[in-house]
Amino acid sequence: MREIIIATHNKGKVKEFKQLLSDLPITIYSLHDFPDIPEVEETGTTFHENAQLKAETIANKLGKPVMADDSGLVIQALDGAPGVYSARYAGEKADDQENIEKVLEQLAKAQNKERTAYFICVLALAIPNKETIFHEGKCYGEITEKPIGENGFGYDPIFVPNGYEHTFAEIDASIKNKLSHRYHALLAMRQYLLDQNL
Amino acid sequence: MREIIIATHNKGKVKEFKQLLSDLPITIYSLHDFPDIPEVEETGTTFHENAQLKAETIANKLGKPVMADDSGLVIQALDGAPGVYSARYAGEKADDQENIEKVLEQLAKAQNKERTAYFICVLALAIPNKETIFHEGKCYGEITEKPIGENGFGYDPIFVPNGYEHTFAEIDASIKNKLSHRYHALLAMRQYLLDQNL
Repeated sequence: MREIIIATHNKGKVKEFKQLLSDLPITIYSLHDFPDIPEVEETGTTFHENAQLKAETIANKLGKPVMADDSGLVIQALDGAPGVYSARYAGEKADDQENIEKVLEQLAKAQNKERTAYFICVLALAIPNKETIFHEGKCYGEITEKPIGENGFGYDPIFVPNGYEHTFAEIDASIKNKLSHRYHALLAMRQYLLDQNL
Repeated sequence: MREIIIATHNKGKVKEFKQLLSDLPITIYSLHDFPDIPEVEETGTTFHENAQLKAETIANKLGKPVMADDSGLVIQALDGAPGVYSARYAGEKADDQENIEKVLEQLAKAQNKERTAYFICVLALAIPNKETIFHEGKCYGEITEKPIGENGFGYDPIFVPNGYEHTFAEIDASIKNKLSHRYHALLAMRQYLLDQNL
């Protein structure tokens, strides 16, 4: 494999992928390099399905290897919610604050008073005429009673990773990036790519 | 805090600590800079005790902040063994291979057939006339049936971290270092040091 296209327009994500794979003999592109590719709708009901759908749809169009990710927050006491609907838990147009409010309301109502949760990222690498490869990363922690902190995005203000006393919205970005579910999925994918060259 | 002495003669460890704290306004020293300090015996029965003993003994001698670590492998089916005795599980002078053999023998005999385990690292930061600070990191995984791989040291050949299909002795060092219990303890300590400067 000489090149991989990352199925995203997110510049932060592209930078993270490029950095972690920079010493491999693979050129990393993103959807900025292929402006004619339309957005793929995330219609799956699992993280694996969504990542696979994005990666395979674009790989089939371009005839090149494509890597896509799907991520979300899984809360045990809510039977896995918000899960694959993390970005739109409080509705299609909901913002971060509305999604957070819904999570805290649901947890207040839940029978199960456990507040354990994890962020998960599933990466799919679709290679034309080959079986799609999956790797995942998780970050375990707990949901707070109320939002704390100003950094980050999404559910960061209500998630305290294991071993810390601060939410992801308080933890320094240099540390959060090394704890993250996406970083760990990428590390596992990096090992796969290294193995391929052996 | 302007300086911290790392309670180790291990050059790899010193390098890892220096790198992860390089952008903080703290100068990192090691026991190489204080050749008159004798080795502290690890007589504790917990990781916290051993790390605390090393850090506080040397901090009291030098009158400066000292950071020490204690690490080990905890296997649930062996009631937490080899634990704090990880380095000398098969005897005071046992080498890695003998320790690994003893773990595999004990697991074969164990009632509980689960092979889940974690590496843990506890870091203690002793500051003269202050309460000692602790941070820990864990790496969860499973014990294999037999040793596989040539890299690393200690129990690496029989430990497969969660999300991987290879042992720590097979995984590329660039990846293993980012999954490790010590790396994660250090990230948590880094957050503590950042908070102190706020």
